[in-house]
Amino acid sequence: MVKDRNYLTDRIRSLKSFLCIGLDPDLNKIPNPYRSSSEPLLRFCADVLEATIDLAIAYKINIAFFERQGSDGFRQLESLVKLIPKECFIIADAKRADIGNTSAQYAEYYFSKLNVDAITLHPYMGVDSLEPFLQFPDKWSIILALTSNAGGADFETLELKTKALVFEKVMERFNESKYSSKIMYVVGATQKDYMQAIRRVSPNNFLLIPGVGEQGGDLKNTIEELRNEVEGILINVSRGIIFPQIEDITKMSIRNAALHYSKQMQQLF
Amino acid sequence: MVKDRNYLTDRIRSLKSFLCIGLDPDLNKIPNPYRSSSEPLLRFCADVLEATIDLAIAYKINIAFFERQGSDGFRQLESLVKLIPKECFIIADAKRADIGNTSAQYAEYYFSKLNVDAITLHPYMGVDSLEPFLQFPDKWSIILALTSNAGGADFETLELKTKALVFEKVMERFNESKYSSKIMYVVGATQKDYMQAIRRVSPNNFLLIPGVGEQGGDLKNTIEELRNEVEGILINVSRGIIFPQIEDITKMSIRNAALHYSKQMQQLF
Repeated sequence: MVKDRNYLTDRIRSLKSFLCIGLDPDLNKIPNPYRSSSEPLLRFCADVLEATIDLAIAYKINIAFFERQGSDGFRQLESLVKLIPKECFIIADAKRADIGNTSAQYAEYYFSKLNVDAITLHPYMGVDSLEPFLQFPDKWSIILALTSNAGGADFETLELKTKALVFEKVMERFNESKYSSKIMYVVGATQKDYMQAIRRVSPNNFLLIPGVGEQGGDLKNTIEELRNEVEGILINVSRGIIFPQIEDITKMSIRNAALHYSKQMQQLF
Repeated sequence: MVKDRNYLTDRIRSLKSFLCIGLDPDLNKIPNPYRSSSEPLLRFCADVLEATIDLAIAYKINIAFFERQGSDGFRQLESLVKLIPKECFIIADAKRADIGNTSAQYAEYYFSKLNVDAITLHPYMGVDSLEPFLQFPDKWSIILALTSNAGGADFETLELKTKALVFEKVMERFNESKYSSKIMYVVGATQKDYMQAIRRVSPNNFLLIPGVGEQGGDLKNTIEELRNEVEGILINVSRGIIFPQIEDITKMSIRNAALHYSKQMQQLF
Protein backbone atom coordinates (compact mmCIF):
# COMPACT_ATOMS: atom_id res chain seq x y z
CA MET A 1 0.00 0.00 0.00
CA VAL A 2 1.47 3.36 -1.03
CA LYS A 3 0.68 5.89 1.66
CA ASP A 4 0.76 9.02 -0.46
CA ARG A 5 -1.15 12.28 -0.21
CA ASN A 6 -4.34 10.71 -1.56
CA TYR A 7 -4.18 7.96 1.02
CA LEU A 8 -3.93 10.52 3.82
CA THR A 9 -6.68 12.75 2.44
CA ASP A 10 -9.04 9.77 2.00
CA ARG A 11 -8.33 8.45 5.47
CA ILE A 12 -8.89 11.86 7.09
CA ARG A 13 -12.19 12.33 5.22
CA SER A 14 -13.48 8.86 6.03
CA LEU A 15 -12.80 9.26 9.77
CA LYS A 16 -13.62 13.01 9.76
CA SER A 17 -10.61 13.40 12.01
CA PHE A 18 -7.02 14.61 11.95
CA LEU A 19 -6.01 12.68 15.04
CA CYS A 20 -2.46 11.46 15.36
CA ILE A 21 -1.87 9.64 18.65
CA GLY A 22 1.56 10.11 20.16
CA LEU A 23 3.14 7.08 21.79
CA ASP A 24 5.48 8.55 24.42
CA PRO A 25 5.71 5.65 26.88
CA ASP A 26 7.27 7.36 29.87
CA LEU A 27 8.30 4.59 32.25
CA ASN A 28 7.67 6.89 35.22
CA LYS A 29 4.04 7.40 34.18
CA ILE A 30 3.13 3.93 32.95
CA PRO A 31 0.85 2.20 35.50
CA ASN A 32 2.25 -0.44 37.82
CA PRO A 33 0.92 -3.61 36.22
CA TYR A 34 2.88 -2.78 33.04
CA ARG A 35 6.00 -1.79 34.91
CA SER A 36 6.38 -5.24 36.41
CA SER A 37 6.44 -6.75 32.89
CA SER A 38 9.76 -7.41 31.16
CA GLU A 39 8.49 -5.33 28.21
CA PRO A 40 6.65 -2.44 29.85
CA LEU A 41 6.89 -0.02 26.91
CA LEU A 42 5.65 -2.61 24.44
CA ARG A 43 2.84 -3.91 26.66
CA PHE A 44 1.59 -0.40 27.46
CA CYS A 45 1.71 0.78 23.84
CA ALA A 46 0.00 -2.44 22.68
CA ASP A 47 -2.92 -1.63 24.96
CA VAL A 48 -3.03 1.97 23.70
CA LEU A 49 -3.21 0.58 20.16
CA GLU A 50 -6.04 -1.80 21.04
CA ALA A 51 -7.96 0.97 22.75
CA THR A 52 -7.63 3.51 19.95
CA ILE A 53 -7.00 1.72 16.65
CA ASP A 54 -10.31 2.78 15.07
CA LEU A 55 -9.80 6.41 16.12
CA ALA A 56 -6.28 7.20 14.88
CA ILE A 57 -5.31 8.51 11.47
CA ALA A 58 -1.70 8.01 12.47
CA TYR A 59 0.52 6.97 15.36
CA LYS A 60 3.63 8.97 16.20
CA ILE A 61 6.20 6.92 18.10
CA ASN A 62 8.52 9.02 20.24
CA ILE A 63 11.81 7.17 19.80
CA ALA A 64 13.49 8.83 22.79
CA PHE A 65 11.36 6.91 25.28
CA PHE A 66 12.56 3.64 23.73
CA GLU A 67 16.16 4.77 23.29
CA ARG A 68 16.12 5.71 26.99
CA GLN A 69 16.13 1.93 27.64
CA GLY A 70 18.92 1.26 25.12
CA SER A 71 19.07 -2.07 23.29
CA ASP A 72 16.15 -3.39 25.34
CA GLY A 73 14.07 -0.36 24.36
CA PHE A 74 14.86 -0.81 20.67
CA ARG A 75 13.85 -4.46 20.93
CA GLN A 76 10.46 -3.34 22.27
CA LEU A 77 10.20 -0.69 19.54
CA GLU A 78 10.82 -3.31 16.85
CA SER A 79 8.08 -5.52 18.30
CA LEU A 80 5.68 -2.59 18.65
CA VAL A 81 5.96 -1.54 15.01
CA LYS A 82 5.02 -5.08 13.95
CA LEU A 83 1.82 -4.82 16.00
CA ILE A 84 0.50 -1.74 14.21
CA PRO A 85 -1.87 -2.65 11.37
CA LYS A 86 -0.55 -1.82 7.91
CA GLU A 87 -3.47 0.53 7.15
CA CYS A 88 -2.19 2.92 9.83
CA PHE A 89 0.27 5.67 9.10
CA ILE A 90 3.33 5.30 11.36
CA ILE A 91 5.62 8.21 12.18
CA ALA A 92 8.98 7.67 13.85
CA ASP A 93 9.44 10.84 15.88
CA ALA A 94 13.21 10.54 15.97
CA LYS A 95 14.37 14.05 15.00
CA ARG A 96 17.49 12.80 13.26
CA ALA A 97 19.80 14.44 10.65
CA ASP A 98 23.51 14.28 9.89
CA ILE A 99 25.82 14.46 6.87
CA GLY A 100 24.71 12.30 3.94
CA ASN A 101 26.50 9.00 4.58
CA THR A 102 25.35 9.06 8.20
CA SER A 103 21.77 10.11 7.49
CA ALA A 104 21.69 7.14 5.09
CA GLN A 105 22.18 4.79 8.06
CA TYR A 106 19.20 6.28 9.91
CA ALA A 107 17.08 6.17 6.72
CA GLU A 108 17.91 2.49 6.21
CA TYR A 109 16.96 1.60 9.76
CA TYR A 110 13.69 3.51 9.95
CA PHE A 111 12.46 3.18 6.36
CA SER A 112 13.77 -0.31 5.44
CA LYS A 113 14.22 -2.30 8.61
CA LEU A 114 11.42 -0.80 10.77
CA ASN A 115 9.42 0.11 7.65
CA VAL A 116 7.67 3.12 9.16
CA ASP A 117 6.01 5.61 6.81
CA ALA A 118 7.61 8.82 7.99
CA ILE A 119 10.35 10.25 10.19
CA THR A 120 10.83 13.66 11.82
CA LEU A 121 14.05 15.51 10.89
CA HIS A 122 16.13 18.57 11.86
CA PRO A 123 16.71 21.03 8.97
CA TYR A 124 19.76 22.84 10.37
CA MET A 125 22.43 21.10 8.26
CA GLY A 126 20.64 21.83 4.97
CA VAL A 127 19.03 19.94 2.11
CA ASP A 128 21.94 17.60 1.34
CA SER A 129 21.91 16.30 4.92
CA LEU A 130 18.34 15.04 4.47
CA GLU A 131 18.63 13.64 0.94
CA PRO A 132 18.91 9.97 2.01
CA PHE A 133 15.48 10.38 3.61
CA LEU A 134 13.99 12.52 0.84
CA GLN A 135 15.10 10.12 -1.91
CA PHE A 136 13.62 7.06 -0.25
CA PRO A 137 10.70 5.77 -2.38
CA ASP A 138 7.21 6.06 -0.90
CA LYS A 139 8.35 7.47 2.44
CA TRP A 140 7.73 10.86 4.05
CA SER A 141 10.19 13.32 5.57
CA ILE A 142 8.69 15.49 8.30
CA ILE A 143 10.93 18.51 8.74
CA LEU A 144 10.94 20.76 11.81
CA ALA A 145 9.78 24.25 10.80
CA LEU A 146 8.18 26.07 13.74
CA THR A 147 8.15 24.01 16.90
CA SER A 148 5.74 24.28 19.82
CA ASN A 149 8.28 25.02 22.59
CA ALA A 150 9.07 28.54 23.81
CA GLY A 151 12.70 28.11 22.69
CA GLY A 152 11.47 28.00 19.11
CA ALA A 153 11.76 31.79 19.26
CA ASP A 154 15.54 31.61 19.79
CA PHE A 155 16.31 30.86 16.13
CA GLU A 156 13.24 29.68 14.19
CA THR A 157 11.50 33.06 14.12
CA LEU A 158 14.56 35.28 13.67
CA GLU A 159 14.29 37.67 10.73
CA LEU A 160 16.76 37.26 7.89
CA LYS A 161 18.26 40.12 5.91
CA THR A 162 15.83 39.16 3.10
CA LYS A 163 12.87 39.80 5.52
CA ALA A 164 11.92 36.12 5.58
CA LEU A 165 11.94 34.42 8.99
CA VAL A 166 14.24 31.44 9.46
CA PHE A 167 11.38 28.89 9.52
CA GLU A 168 9.89 30.42 6.36
CA LYS A 169 13.24 30.09 4.61
CA VAL A 170 13.48 26.45 5.75
CA MET A 171 10.10 25.69 4.17
CA GLU A 172 10.90 27.67 1.01
CA ARG A 173 14.24 25.96 0.51
CA PHE A 174 12.89 22.43 0.97
CA ASN A 175 9.83 23.20 -1.17
CA GLU A 176 12.17 24.23 -4.00
CA SER A 177 13.71 20.75 -3.92
CA LYS A 178 12.21 18.09 -6.13
CA TYR A 179 10.89 16.23 -3.09
CA SER A 180 8.21 18.67 -1.97
CA SER A 181 5.26 16.29 -2.39
CA LYS A 182 6.82 13.90 0.16
CA ILE A 183 7.63 16.57 2.72
CA MET A 184 5.57 17.49 5.76
CA TYR A 185 6.50 20.21 8.23
CA VAL A 186 6.23 20.27 11.99
CA VAL A 187 4.28 23.34 13.09
CA GLY A 188 3.24 23.87 16.70
CA ALA A 189 -0.43 24.59 17.47
CA THR A 190 0.91 27.10 20.00
CA GLN A 191 2.24 29.31 17.17
CA LYS A 192 -0.99 31.25 16.53
CA ASP A 193 0.71 34.40 15.28
CA TYR A 194 2.49 32.62 12.43
CA MET A 195 -0.22 30.37 11.01
CA GLN A 196 -1.01 32.58 8.04
CA ALA A 197 2.67 32.86 7.19
CA ILE A 198 2.95 29.08 7.26
CA ARG A 199 0.16 28.56 4.74
CA ARG A 200 1.45 31.43 2.59
CA VAL A 201 4.87 29.74 2.26
CA SER A 202 3.59 26.16 2.23
CA PRO A 203 0.01 26.08 0.92
CA ASN A 204 0.18 22.48 -0.26
CA ASN A 205 2.25 20.54 2.26
CA PHE A 206 0.84 18.33 4.95
CA LEU A 207 1.64 19.58 8.46
CA LEU A 208 2.27 17.57 11.61
CA ILE A 209 0.93 19.65 14.48
CA PRO A 210 1.88 19.06 18.11
CA GLY A 211 0.92 21.43 20.92
CA VAL A 212 -2.82 20.79 21.24
CA GLY A 213 -3.75 19.44 24.66
CA GLU A 214 -1.11 19.68 27.40
CA GLN A 215 0.76 22.51 25.69
CA GLY A 216 -2.33 24.68 25.26
CA GLY A 217 -2.79 25.10 21.48
CA ASP A 218 -6.39 25.79 20.39
CA LEU A 219 -7.91 22.99 18.29
CA LYS A 220 -10.58 25.05 16.50
CA ASN A 221 -8.20 27.83 15.55
CA THR A 222 -5.55 25.34 14.38
CA ILE A 223 -7.97 23.54 12.07
CA GLU A 224 -9.41 26.78 10.66
CA GLU A 225 -6.02 28.28 9.93
CA LEU A 226 -3.99 25.29 8.74
CA ARG A 227 -6.33 22.83 7.01
CA ASN A 228 -6.02 23.08 3.23
CA GLU A 229 -7.78 21.67 0.15
CA VAL A 230 -6.40 18.18 0.71
CA GLU A 231 -7.19 18.37 4.47
CA GLY A 232 -3.39 18.55 4.95
CA ILE A 233 -3.02 18.41 8.75
CA LEU A 234 -2.26 15.72 11.30
CA ILE A 235 -2.92 16.92 14.84
CA ASN A 236 -0.90 15.06 17.42
CA VAL A 237 -1.97 14.44 21.00
CA SER A 238 0.37 12.39 23.19
CA ARG A 239 0.17 12.85 26.95
CA GLY A 240 -3.43 14.12 26.75
CA ILE A 241 -4.50 10.68 25.50
CA ILE A 242 -2.08 8.07 26.82
CA PHE A 243 -1.78 9.64 30.28
CA PRO A 244 -5.24 11.20 30.79
CA GLN A 245 -5.70 13.35 33.88
CA ILE A 246 -7.25 10.71 36.07
CA GLU A 247 -5.97 8.46 38.81
CA ASP A 248 -6.46 5.18 37.01
CA ILE A 249 -4.92 4.83 33.57
CA THR A 250 -6.79 2.00 31.88
CA LYS A 251 -7.61 1.02 28.31
CA MET A 252 -11.04 2.52 28.93
CA SER A 253 -9.75 5.87 30.17
CA ILE A 254 -7.31 6.04 27.25
CA ARG A 255 -10.08 5.30 24.77
CA ASN A 256 -12.29 7.93 26.38
CA ALA A 257 -9.52 10.51 26.08
CA ALA A 258 -9.01 9.64 22.40
CA LEU A 259 -12.77 9.82 21.82
CA HIS A 260 -12.83 13.25 23.42
CA TYR A 261 -10.40 14.56 20.79
CA SER A 262 -11.84 12.66 17.83
CA LYS A 263 -15.37 13.84 18.60
CA GLN A 264 -14.19 17.42 18.85
CA MET A 265 -12.53 17.03 15.47
CA GLN A 266 -15.66 15.51 13.92
CA GLN A 267 -17.70 18.46 15.13
CA LEU A 268 -15.21 20.89 13.60
CA PHE A 269 -14.79 18.91 10.33
CA MET B 1 37.39 11.67 37.09
CA VAL B 2 35.89 15.02 36.08
CA LYS B 3 36.67 15.59 32.43
CA ASP B 4 36.53 19.36 32.44
CA ARG B 5 38.39 21.96 30.40
CA ASN B 6 41.59 21.47 32.39
CA TYR B 7 41.49 17.74 31.78
CA LEU B 8 41.21 18.29 28.03
CA THR B 9 43.93 20.95 27.93
CA ASP B 10 46.32 18.77 29.94
CA ARG B 11 45.65 15.72 27.82
CA ILE B 12 46.18 17.64 24.57
CA ARG B 13 49.45 19.13 25.84
CA SER B 14 50.80 15.82 27.10
CA LEU B 15 50.12 14.04 23.79
CA LYS B 16 50.89 17.16 21.68
CA SER B 17 47.88 16.17 19.62
CA PHE B 18 44.29 17.18 19.00
CA LEU B 19 43.31 13.82 17.54
CA CYS B 20 39.76 12.58 17.96
CA ILE B 21 39.22 9.22 16.28
CA GLY B 22 35.80 8.71 14.78
CA LEU B 23 34.26 5.26 15.12
CA ASP B 24 31.90 4.97 12.13
CA PRO B 25 31.73 1.18 11.72
CA ASP B 26 30.15 0.92 8.29
CA LEU B 27 29.18 -2.72 7.88
CA ASN B 28 29.80 -2.48 4.12
CA LYS B 29 33.41 -1.44 4.67
CA ILE B 30 34.36 -3.60 7.65
CA PRO B 31 36.68 -6.42 6.48
CA ASN B 32 35.31 -9.95 6.06
CA PRO B 33 36.68 -11.64 9.17
CA TYR B 34 34.70 -9.20 11.32
CA ARG B 35 31.58 -9.48 9.24
CA SER B 36 31.24 -13.18 9.94
CA SER B 37 31.20 -12.45 13.69
CA SER B 38 27.88 -12.07 15.50
CA GLU B 39 29.11 -8.70 16.79
CA PRO B 40 30.90 -7.18 13.80
CA LEU B 41 30.62 -3.53 14.89
CA LEU B 42 31.89 -4.27 18.38
CA ARG B 43 34.74 -6.56 17.26
CA PHE B 44 35.95 -4.09 14.62
CA CYS B 45 35.79 -1.09 16.96
CA ALA B 46 37.52 -3.08 19.71
CA ASP B 47 40.44 -3.63 17.34
CA VAL B 48 40.50 0.05 16.37
CA LEU B 49 40.68 0.89 20.09
CA GLU B 50 43.55 -1.53 20.68
CA ALA B 51 45.46 -0.18 17.70
CA THR B 52 45.08 3.49 18.61
CA ILE B 53 44.45 3.84 22.34
CA ASP B 54 47.75 5.67 23.04
CA LEU B 55 47.17 8.08 20.14
CA ALA B 56 43.64 9.36 20.72
CA ILE B 57 42.65 12.34 22.84
CA ALA B 58 39.05 11.33 22.29
CA TYR B 59 36.84 8.81 20.50
CA LYS B 60 33.73 9.96 18.69
CA ILE B 61 31.18 7.16 18.28
CA ASN B 62 28.83 7.67 15.34
CA ILE B 63 25.58 6.34 16.76
CA ALA B 64 23.90 6.03 13.34
CA PHE B 65 26.07 3.06 12.35
CA PHE B 66 24.91 1.21 15.48
CA GLU B 67 21.29 2.34 15.23
CA ARG B 68 21.31 1.04 11.63
CA GLN B 69 21.37 -2.45 13.21
CA GLY B 70 18.58 -1.64 15.69
CA SER B 71 18.46 -3.38 19.07
CA ASP B 72 21.41 -5.57 18.10
CA GLY B 73 23.45 -2.49 17.22
CA PHE B 74 22.65 -0.80 20.53
CA ARG B 75 23.70 -3.96 22.35
CA GLN B 76 27.08 -3.72 20.60
CA LEU B 77 27.29 0.00 21.37
CA GLU B 78 26.70 -0.67 25.07
CA SER B 79 29.48 -3.28 25.10
CA LEU B 80 31.83 -1.00 23.16
CA VAL B 81 31.52 1.89 25.59
CA LYS B 82 32.51 -0.41 28.44
CA LEU B 83 35.72 -1.33 26.57
CA ILE B 84 36.98 2.25 26.32
CA PRO B 85 39.35 3.12 29.17
CA LYS B 86 38.01 5.74 31.57
CA GLU B 87 40.90 8.15 30.87
CA CYS B 88 39.60 8.61 27.33
CA PHE B 89 37.10 11.25 26.39
CA ILE B 90 34.05 9.64 24.75
CA ILE B 91 31.72 11.57 22.46
CA ALA B 92 28.37 10.13 21.38
CA ASP B 93 27.89 11.61 17.93
CA ALA B 94 24.12 11.25 18.05
CA LYS B 95 22.90 14.69 16.89
CA ARG B 96 19.80 14.60 19.03
CA ALA B 97 17.46 17.38 20.30
CA ASP B 98 13.74 17.62 21.04
CA ILE B 99 11.41 19.43 23.44
CA GLY B 100 12.54 19.30 27.06
CA ASN B 101 10.80 16.19 28.38
CA THR B 102 11.96 14.22 25.35
CA SER B 103 15.53 15.53 25.35
CA ALA B 104 15.63 14.42 28.99
CA GLN B 105 15.20 10.81 27.84
CA TYR B 106 18.16 11.06 25.48
CA ALA B 107 20.27 12.77 28.16
CA GLU B 108 19.48 10.00 30.65
CA TYR B 109 20.47 7.28 28.21
CA TYR B 110 23.71 8.81 26.96
CA PHE B 111 24.92 10.56 30.11
CA SER B 112 23.67 8.18 32.85
CA LYS B 113 23.25 4.74 31.32
CA LEU B 114 26.04 4.80 28.70
CA ASN B 115 28.00 7.34 30.76
CA VAL B 116 29.72 9.01 27.80
CA ASP B 117 31.35 12.40 28.36
CA ALA B 118 29.70 14.39 25.59
CA ILE B 119 26.96 14.30 22.97
CA THR B 120 26.44 16.20 19.71
CA LEU B 121 23.20 18.22 19.46
CA HIS B 122 21.08 20.17 16.97
CA PRO B 123 20.45 23.81 17.99
CA TYR B 124 17.38 24.50 15.81
CA MET B 125 14.71 24.20 18.55
CA GLY B 126 16.49 26.66 20.86
CA VAL B 127 18.11 26.71 24.28
CA ASP B 128 15.23 25.17 26.24
CA SER B 129 15.30 22.09 24.02
CA LEU B 130 18.89 21.36 25.08
CA GLU B 131 18.60 22.17 28.78
CA PRO B 132 18.36 18.54 29.95
CA PHE B 133 21.81 18.02 28.38
CA LEU B 134 23.25 21.36 29.46
CA GLN B 135 22.16 20.90 33.08
CA PHE B 136 23.69 17.46 33.43
CA PRO B 137 26.60 17.62 35.91
CA ASP B 138 30.11 17.08 34.50
CA LYS B 139 28.96 16.37 30.94
CA TRP B 140 29.54 18.28 27.70
CA SER B 141 27.05 19.44 25.09
CA ILE B 142 28.54 19.72 21.61
CA ILE B 143 26.25 21.94 19.56
CA LEU B 144 26.23 22.11 15.76
CA ALA B 145 27.33 25.56 14.63
CA LEU B 146 28.92 25.45 11.17
CA THR B 147 28.99 21.96 9.70
CA SER B 148 31.42 20.59 7.11
CA ASN B 149 28.88 19.62 4.42
CA ALA B 150 28.03 21.83 1.45
CA GLY B 151 24.41 22.05 2.62
CA GLY B 152 25.63 23.98 5.65
CA ALA B 153 25.28 27.03 3.41
CA ASP B 154 21.51 26.54 3.08
CA PHE B 155 20.74 27.95 6.54
CA GLU B 156 23.82 28.10 8.79
CA THR B 157 25.51 30.97 6.95
CA LEU B 158 22.42 33.02 6.09
CA GLU B 159 22.65 36.63 7.19
CA LEU B 160 20.18 37.87 9.79
CA LYS B 161 18.63 41.31 9.83
CA THR B 162 21.06 42.12 12.69
CA LYS B 163 24.03 41.36 10.32
CA ALA B 164 25.03 38.28 12.32
CA LEU B 165 25.04 34.98 10.44
CA VAL B 166 22.78 32.20 11.74
CA PHE B 167 25.67 30.09 13.12
CA GLU B 168 27.13 33.16 14.87
CA LYS B 169 23.76 33.81 16.50
CA VAL B 170 23.59 30.16 17.60
CA MET B 171 26.97 30.46 19.32
CA GLU B 172 26.13 33.86 20.84
CA ARG B 173 22.81 32.66 22.20
CA PHE B 174 24.21 29.51 23.81
CA ASN B 175 27.25 31.39 25.12
CA GLU B 176 24.88 33.80 26.91
CA SER B 177 23.40 30.86 28.80
CA LYS B 178 24.92 29.89 32.12
CA TYR B 179 26.28 26.68 30.63
CA SER B 180 28.93 28.10 28.32
CA SER B 181 31.92 26.42 30.01
CA LYS B 182 30.41 22.99 29.24
CA ILE B 183 29.55 23.75 25.61
CA MET B 184 31.63 22.84 22.57
CA TYR B 185 30.66 23.70 19.02
CA VAL B 186 30.96 21.65 15.86
CA VAL B 187 32.88 23.60 13.22
CA GLY B 188 33.90 22.03 9.91
CA ALA B 189 37.56 22.24 8.86
CA THR B 190 36.22 22.89 5.36
CA GLN B 191 34.84 26.29 6.49
CA LYS B 192 38.04 28.31 5.92
CA ASP B 193 36.28 31.58 5.20
CA TYR B 194 34.52 31.67 8.56
CA MET B 195 37.26 30.64 10.98
CA GLN B 196 38.01 34.16 12.20
CA ALA B 197 34.31 34.82 12.76
CA ILE B 198 34.08 31.63 14.83
CA ARG B 199 36.87 32.67 17.19
CA ARG B 200 35.54 36.22 17.37
CA VAL B 201 32.15 34.97 18.60
CA SER B 202 33.48 32.04 20.63
CA PRO B 203 37.04 32.75 21.73
CA ASN B 204 36.92 30.42 24.75
CA ASN B 205 34.89 27.38 23.76
CA PHE B 206 36.33 24.05 22.75
CA LEU B 207 35.53 23.12 19.15
CA LEU B 208 34.95 19.68 17.67
CA ILE B 209 36.26 19.81 14.13
CA PRO B 210 35.34 17.27 11.44
CA GLY B 211 36.28 17.67 7.79
CA VAL B 212 40.04 17.01 7.86
CA GLY B 213 40.99 13.99 5.76
CA GLU B 214 38.35 12.63 3.35
CA GLN B 215 36.44 15.91 3.21
CA GLY B 216 39.51 17.98 2.33
CA GLY B 217 39.95 20.43 5.23
CA ASP B 218 43.53 21.67 5.75
CA LEU B 219 45.08 20.56 9.06
CA LYS B 220 47.70 23.30 9.37
CA ASN B 221 45.29 26.11 8.61
CA THR B 222 42.67 24.66 10.97
CA ILE B 223 45.11 24.50 13.89
CA GLU B 224 46.49 27.99 13.24
CA GLU B 225 43.07 29.60 13.01
CA LEU B 226 41.09 27.77 15.69
CA ARG B 227 43.45 26.73 18.49
CA ASN B 228 43.12 29.06 21.48
CA GLU B 229 44.88 29.65 24.81
CA VAL B 230 43.56 26.41 26.31
CA GLU B 231 44.37 24.49 23.09
CA GLY B 232 40.56 24.30 22.60
CA ILE B 233 40.22 22.05 19.55
CA LEU B 234 39.50 18.38 18.95
CA ILE B 235 40.17 17.40 15.34
CA ASN B 236 38.18 14.38 14.26
CA VAL B 237 39.26 11.88 11.63
CA SER B 238 36.95 8.92 10.98
CA ARG B 239 37.17 7.19 7.61
CA GLY B 240 40.75 8.40 7.05
CA ILE B 241 41.86 6.27 10.00
CA ILE B 242 39.49 3.33 10.39
CA PHE B 243 39.19 2.70 6.64
CA PRO B 244 42.62 3.79 5.32
CA GLN B 245 43.06 3.85 1.56
CA ILE B 246 44.65 0.43 1.19
CA GLU B 247 43.38 -2.97 0.20
CA ASP B 248 43.93 -4.67 3.53
CA ILE B 249 42.38 -3.07 6.59
CA THR B 250 44.30 -4.44 9.57
CA LYS B 251 45.11 -3.24 13.07
CA MET B 252 48.54 -2.30 11.71
CA SER B 253 47.20 -0.23 8.80
CA ILE B 254 44.74 1.49 11.13
CA ARG B 255 47.53 2.30 13.60
CA ASN B 256 49.68 3.63 10.79
CA ALA B 257 46.88 5.88 9.58
CA ALA B 258 46.37 7.22 13.12
CA LEU B 259 50.13 7.73 13.49
CA HIS B 260 50.15 9.69 10.24
CA TYR B 261 47.69 12.20 11.70
CA SER B 262 49.15 12.31 15.21
CA LYS B 263 52.68 12.90 13.89
CA GLN B 264 51.44 15.72 11.68
CA MET B 265 49.76 17.27 14.72
CA GLN B 266 52.92 16.91 16.85
CA GLN B 267 54.90 18.71 14.17
CA LEU B 268 52.38 21.54 14.10
CA PHE B 269 51.99 21.72 17.90
